[in-house]
Amino acid sequence: MTLACGIDVGGTKIAGGVVDEDGKILEELRVESPATDAEEIEAAIADLVSQLASRHSIGSVGVGAAGYIDKARAVVLFAPNLAWRNVDLRSDLEKRVDLPVVIENDANAAAWGEFRFGAGHDIDDLLLVTVGTGVGGGLVLDGALYRGAFGVGAEIGHMRVVPDGILCGCGKHGCFEQYASGSALVREVRAAADRGSAGARNLLERAGGDPQRITGPLVTEAARDGDPFALEQLAAVGTWLGEGIASLTEILDPAVVVIGGGVSEADELLLDPVRTAFAAQMPDRDFRPTLEIRKARLGNHAGLIGAADLSRR
Amino acid sequence: MTLACGIDVGGTKIAGGVVDEDGKILEELRVESPATDAEEIEAAIADLVSQLASRHSIGSVGVGAAGYIDKARAVVLFAPNLAWRNVDLRSDLEKRVDLPVVIENDANAAAWGEFRFGAGHDIDDLLLVTVGTGVGGGLVLDGALYRGAFGVGAEIGHMRVVPDGILCGCGKHGCFEQYASGSALVREVRAAADRGSAGARNLLERAGGDPQRITGPLVTEAARDGDPFALEQLAAVGTWLGEGIASLTEILDPAVVVIGGGVSEADELLLDPVRTAFAAQMPDRDFRPTLEIRKARLGNHAGLIGAADLSRR
Amino acid sequence: MTLACGIDVGGTKIAGGVVDEDGKILEELRVESPATDAEEIEAAIADLVSQLASRHSIGSVGVGAAGYIDKARAVVLFAPNLAWRNVDLRSDLEKRVDLPVVIENDANAAAWGEFRFGAGHDIDDLLLVTVGTGVGGGLVLDGALYRGAFGVGAEIGHMRVVPDGILCGCGKHGCFEQYASGSALVREVRAAADRGSAGARNLLERAGGDPQRITGPLVTEAARDGDPFALEQLAAVGTWLGEGIASLTEILDPAVVVIGGGVSEADELLLDPVRTAFAAQMPDRDFRPTLEIRKARLGNHAGLIGAADLSRR
Amino acid sequence: MTLACGIDVGGTKIAGGVVDEDGKILEELRVESPATDAEEIEAAIADLVSQLASRHSIGSVGVGAAGYIDKARAVVLFAPNLAWRNVDLRSDLEKRVDLPVVIENDANAAAWGEFRFGAGHDIDDLLLVTVGTGVGGGLVLDGALYRGAFGVGAEIGHMRVVPDGILCGCGKHGCFEQYASGSALVREVRAAADRGSAGARNLLERAGGDPQRITGPLVTEAARDGDPFALEQLAAVGTWLGEGIASLTEILDPAVVVIGGGVSEADELLLDPVRTAFAAQMPDRDFRPTLEIRKARLGNHAGLIGAADLSRR
Repeated sequence: MTLACGIDVGGTKIAGGVVDEDGKILEELRVESPATDAEEIEAAIADLVSQLASRHSIGSVGVGAAGYIDKARAVVLFAPNLAWRNVDLRSDLEKRVDLPVVIENDANAAAWGEFRFGAGHDIDDLLLVTVGTGVGGGLVLDGALYRGAFGVGAEIGHMRVVPDGILCGCGKHGCFEQYASGSALVREVRAAADRGSAGARNLLERAGGDPQRITGPLVTEAARDGDPFALEQLAAVGTWLGEGIASLTEILDPAVVVIGGGVSEADELLLDPVRTAFAAQMPDRDFRPTLEIRKARLGNHAGLIGAADLSRR
Repeated sequence: MTLACGIDVGGTKIAGGVVDEDGKILEELRVESPATDAEEIEAAIADLVSQLASRHSIGSVGVGAAGYIDKARAVVLFAPNLAWRNVDLRSDLEKRVDLPVVIENDANAAAWGEFRFGAGHDIDDLLLVTVGTGVGGGLVLDGALYRGAFGVGAEIGHMRVVPDGILCGCGKHGCFEQYASGSALVREVRAAADRGSAGARNLLERAGGDPQRITGPLVTEAARDGDPFALEQLAAVGTWLGEGIASLTEILDPAVVVIGGGVSEADELLLDPVRTAFAAQMPDRDFRPTLEIRKARLGNHAGLIGAADLSRR
Repeated sequence: MTLACGIDVGGTKIAGGVVDEDGKILEELRVESPATDAEEIEAAIADLVSQLASRHSIGSVGVGAAGYIDKARAVVLFAPNLAWRNVDLRSDLEKRVDLPVVIENDANAAAWGEFRFGAGHDIDDLLLVTVGTGVGGGLVLDGALYRGAFGVGAEIGHMRVVPDGILCGCGKHGCFEQYASGSALVREVRAAADRGSAGARNLLERAGGDPQRITGPLVTEAARDGDPFALEQLAAVGTWLGEGIASLTEILDPAVVVIGGGVSEADELLLDPVRTAFAAQMPDRDFRPTLEIRKARLGNHAGLIGAADLSRR
Repeated sequence: MTLACGIDVGGTKIAGGVVDEDGKILEELRVESPATDAEEIEAAIADLVSQLASRHSIGSVGVGAAGYIDKARAVVLFAPNLAWRNVDLRSDLEKRVDLPVVIENDANAAAWGEFRFGAGHDIDDLLLVTVGTGVGGGLVLDGALYRGAFGVGAEIGHMRVVPDGILCGCGKHGCFEQYASGSALVREVRAAADRGSAGARNLLERAGGDPQRITGPLVTEAARDGDPFALEQLAAVGTWLGEGIASLTEILDPAVVVIGGGVSEADELLLDPVRTAFAAQMPDRDFRPTLEIRKARLGNHAGLIGAADLSRR
């Protein structure tokens, strides 16, 4: 049985795991990410791989990272949070680990993971929407990962949804991820807490009185306990998500949309508003086959599992 | 050499042509479309085919029609302007013409035509954007036509670009085609003429004083003659197009965007603003390979030629 | 006791009434409006006045009409639905009726009526928002009618609320009255009925199957009977109203906002969403005195009563 | 001849001046503002007044401050940048300085100054729009300062111009001042510089390579030198201003709009786009008297001069 190593390079952590052909993680390691230096990150990845390879018979390595990866699944063109610009990460790592390596965009890797072993294991086409710090996307069509002409497709978080809307880190205004992400959720709640809004009082207390300590999980927890403002704010994010997914459906026509990322932990508190808003924005749904909206199943392991599996192909 | 018959079913006309393997039209016929009755349209198509088949050795028939076509390229799920709802057009026509038939969405067929024999003949990936009554889309990726999970993808005209924007015939507000189509161009110019706007005076004169006789070609002609209001209105449509294409690029990552449809006849008067607006909405373009924006080459024959060619596959 | 004659010039009807100092209507007459000809309208008004004057001792005449009236309360600069352009209606009528005449914008007249004898009788400052075919406004401040520098102020229906929004008859996009009027309500419901939306089925039945026969009162009636789609559509109009009133409050700082016009007959089905949306858009309301939102009391007599009363001043 | 003392309380400085009946400043003093403590600010104001009163025969004191001032011109209900919440500043100061005091909103005071001695000295009605850190407004109508029902009117910077737009410090999204202020100008330019935009390179150099050192005056200076990006950004602010002024004109109907505040120093580089955008948003301008858009004349002394003059009334 062939084992593959999956690596998930995040902004603050690097996770590495040994994944079998059924998508099961046999062993997992995590280290802090030395984010400022490309070489150090490569060294850290290589170190993770060799530790895992010392205990498992690994045939290939798949690396998932946020950013633009070229179509050859080798060069990181641009990574927003890391130090990479036009780095041939594949060659660099192959030299270090002496195994075949593929590099993939993290949301693409996660989409592949969910397609193979998670919420989409029973279907051929899915769009994964990850709702975390940003909004990421990954598309599987007819059982193949959609990568666009240059390898930089499915960047759904930067579809413009509000002309002259909120300024995005990418330099545009009104990007989808400024409305439908965990960061959007936290930004709105913190702003309300900052100006002493009555609605946010409970959330502020839960955060020990410091607006900056209000986090997505804290809002979700409060929503589960019935806090009306937290519920309303989750619903607002869900509504934007559902409306954006409607536009994406017109363009991409997926069979299933899988909602992943940290905010998806809110389950139906998020998914109910997503479905309602989606339906309201699909007025011609009597005439077209309707997609299903599901929650992701692999949690934050989707990228690692997907990257590992992709390295086998 | 295998000849194929291409049929283009429009709102008011049906065109049929014999197309060779180089995309050349050997003979073409046009009839008025009996739009109100599905059977009559089928009969008209069959009649066109048999006329052409009497003079050419035709191996297959491809039909392009506006609407949702199922993934099997057989059933018209919904056609906005025609009388079809869930009609198995393929079976119906195959019975009538005794040749293999495929049905395809008209913009998809046109995209295929441009990909094979037109503006995209030298590349593997293209997004066709047709700017006419509405805004249609067709995507070719890695040399294959993108059809989505259910066959109803690339409906880019119904991506929402303005929340609470102009009401679309589809029932949503703010659809792309309400801003970036020939209809949008004409609507704005007629509204200005209706209320006696000084800017629209020249256009109104060209239309014999009747705002309802202002058409897209008339606006384009006036723009070519330097009419400032006509230029401004074309530029407004081009700006919306460029901004929408930026969103589509984030999602689809095409190598080339081909602009077709009637309004593309305005050439650089439209394409210049498209490119400027596109560039302004791609702030990270230093880090990602940039697509090219080209004008379509096959004019209003793209759908017919593409449909014919698709029927061979 | 001085009696005054109030005239309300509408698009289809002209109403005239004798109003006493307590705002009571002693007699009222109505005639069809000969809308196409300015002189004919003047003759019709003069006829109404002389009929009423034959039975009552009238000291002055006040005329309320939609449009821009100059600051001298004499000249109709522009009337959107009537044949007047720069007509000195005051002089014309004074010649015909031999009584002092003042002309006033209809929403201003209605605001004055509500201020003196209706929903604002107990306060010094109010903003009237009339929600009918369009959205009109009238402002009373410190007990005086606000007329702006040129007499054409309080045209709140043409505040832009959505950039690139729905096209308004005035030539702009996104005017307040395209979202918060009775026409907006009817447009949305008809559009849903037109495309066979399930939600609009009940409303369509009530209209005998003809979308064009769906009216504002019909929607209100259905909402009162609990029709969910009608309720939702009324709430949508109410939400836009409340959000617009929030902007107007920042600018005008009224003590009371009075909601009049035909759609206000929906009472709390409209006013509840107005108040909720208003509150959500006034985040600093802890620090500023909060206005009250009330329903108008004089119904469609407000303009006639107000115009009569203004003619005494 | 009666002299009055005008005080302008800013976020970082307090200015005091002796103003004669012609609006001339006879002497002016400035101190740092001890912004964190209300009593300290009061003491600082009292100290400024007594210094000036020791050398001039002052009859009254007028104080202009950002925030909500009650209608009695006495109580600061809320000051966004200062420590005041419901402070009876008038009583407090009258005890300290033994002179009659009036408190006024700073933009109202500046509007009054421009009306009496500046850009509006020849007319009876004006709307002042101050374009600085935020967007402030002051309205003079029929020679009287408009203060609304509660004294908190003319807060034009918080009219919503983009639903779901940029988040404002006030807690709303899409406020006018998020688009049409000096802060908006600087935010956009810094964001472009931050992500290494080629357009912003010249501006970044002028700022010594530090995006945070890019200021409004620096952008204006570069625009004067012909920097295309700076010109474009100033024009963008001017366009938003002109469009907002169009909405305000529908509502308020001023005779003259005076543009003040720091960004107005860009003169025609700002005012040209303001006028163009305004005209484009006033499609019915053939039928209504048109306002004039002028630059303010009193610079940053308008508030001090206006407050002094208001204290005489």
